[in-house]
Amino acid sequence: MAAERSPRAGRTRTRVTRLPELQRHDRAELDAILDAGVVAHVAIVDAGQPYAIPMAYVRDGDRLLLHGSTASRLLRTLADGAPACVTITHVDGLVVARSAFESSLHYRSAMLLGHCRAVDDPLDALARFTDGLLPGRWQEVRPARAKELAATRVVELPIEEWSVKVSADDPEDPEADRALDIWAGVLPVEVRYGQPRPAADLRPGIPVPLSVERLAGGDVGP
Amino acid sequence: MAAERSPRAGRTRTRVTRLPELQRHDRAELDAILDAGVVAHVAIVDAGQPYAIPMAYVRDGDRLLLHGSTASRLLRTLADGAPACVTITHVDGLVVARSAFESSLHYRSAMLLGHCRAVDDPLDALARFTDGLLPGRWQEVRPARAKELAATRVVELPIEEWSVKVSADDPEDPEADRALDIWAGVLPVEVRYGQPRPAADLRPGIPVPLSVERLAGGDVGP
Repeated sequence: MAAERSPRAGRTRTRVTRLPELQRHDRAELDAILDAGVVAHVAIVDAGQPYAIPMAYVRDGDRLLLHGSTASRLLRTLADGAPACVTITHVDGLVVARSAFESSLHYRSAMLLGHCRAVDDPLDALARFTDGLLPGRWQEVRPARAKELAATRVVELPIEEWSVKVSADDPEDPEADRALDIWAGVLPVEVRYGQPRPAADLRPGIPVPLSVERLAGGDVGP
Repeated sequence: MAAERSPRAGRTRTRVTRLPELQRHDRAELDAILDAGVVAHVAIVDAGQPYAIPMAYVRDGDRLLLHGSTASRLLRTLADGAPACVTITHVDGLVVARSAFESSLHYRSAMLLGHCRAVDDPLDALARFTDGLLPGRWQEVRPARAKELAATRVVELPIEEWSVKVSADDPEDPEADRALDIWAGVLPVEVRYGQPRPAADLRPGIPVPLSVERLAGGDVGP
């Protein structure tokens, strides 16, 4: 399932060379994959060593927002514009073929390349971040304080150079294998929100808010 | 949630500097996180550009196995021993605090650094790969053929340099916020296998095999 880069620079870095029939070029498909996720893996390089670091993210129009502490070296590296790769992958199932060779996974994956930069309006970005993960939550929480904003760094990655790969088909066993007495199909993976658990220190009589109620029990995603 | 590297080389590359209280040092916790996953994000560097690439993986004792086509440039890069980072992350829930600032995620994340190498016995590795994702499947599938083995490259990453970060606590609102009429708690994320769907070309009368039956409807993980 490796969504691989082309050896050449520029836009061809996001051309899928392995299993190119799985590549998608529709921006709406990209947005759907981004909007269905909560955590991205952000790749950066430090002294020749690559790191893939999990980070919460949200999409806001034509940018991805990432955030963290101003004390975070990673966030500073990103804000400084180091080359970055942000990948979001959803695993949708096991593709169970009649041979190990044809067995694989159902997945949707989006990879973005580029350089992050600090956002112009951190308060606005935090509101979008909060509502991106839990729509409507920004209106329910205690307002942000200046010292909290000062302790938070929000960066954005413009959605410019990207690739999307989707595997959603049945196993593709060769004809001879299809005649065998071996089962083939897909075992789906389902990702859902459960039921909300109140914090141990929650005061009695405070109901589950609308933002949480709306997501509870539903699929993770928009 | 960024599990960040230390500025110095060597073992300190896997010391968690942000939120160090979330770091775990127990090998059993590492193994549990690895064994509960299906897809890793593998970071490599090419011409200064980092890439985070989703790949199916399995743990086999003290190594991670990754595989792909011999035609894959990524697999060749890995087999050649390029510096790599393999990260597995499970999102377990949204931590809903009384402020946006304290809101976060429940997650378990494992990051491994090192260099991959080609495995000595690809057939054995493929069997472990197949059974790692779907225990017992290797005995059910049509035996692998020499040309399939020749078209497959399996690499292993020794489990040597790693870090684990786990966030599983209630929101930690300051005392003044806990007095507010604002809900706080956790909205869990649940990842399960659904019910198997037979392939459109499956011949009638072939039952769902034991390997698939055992996982259907259960949690994703060991």
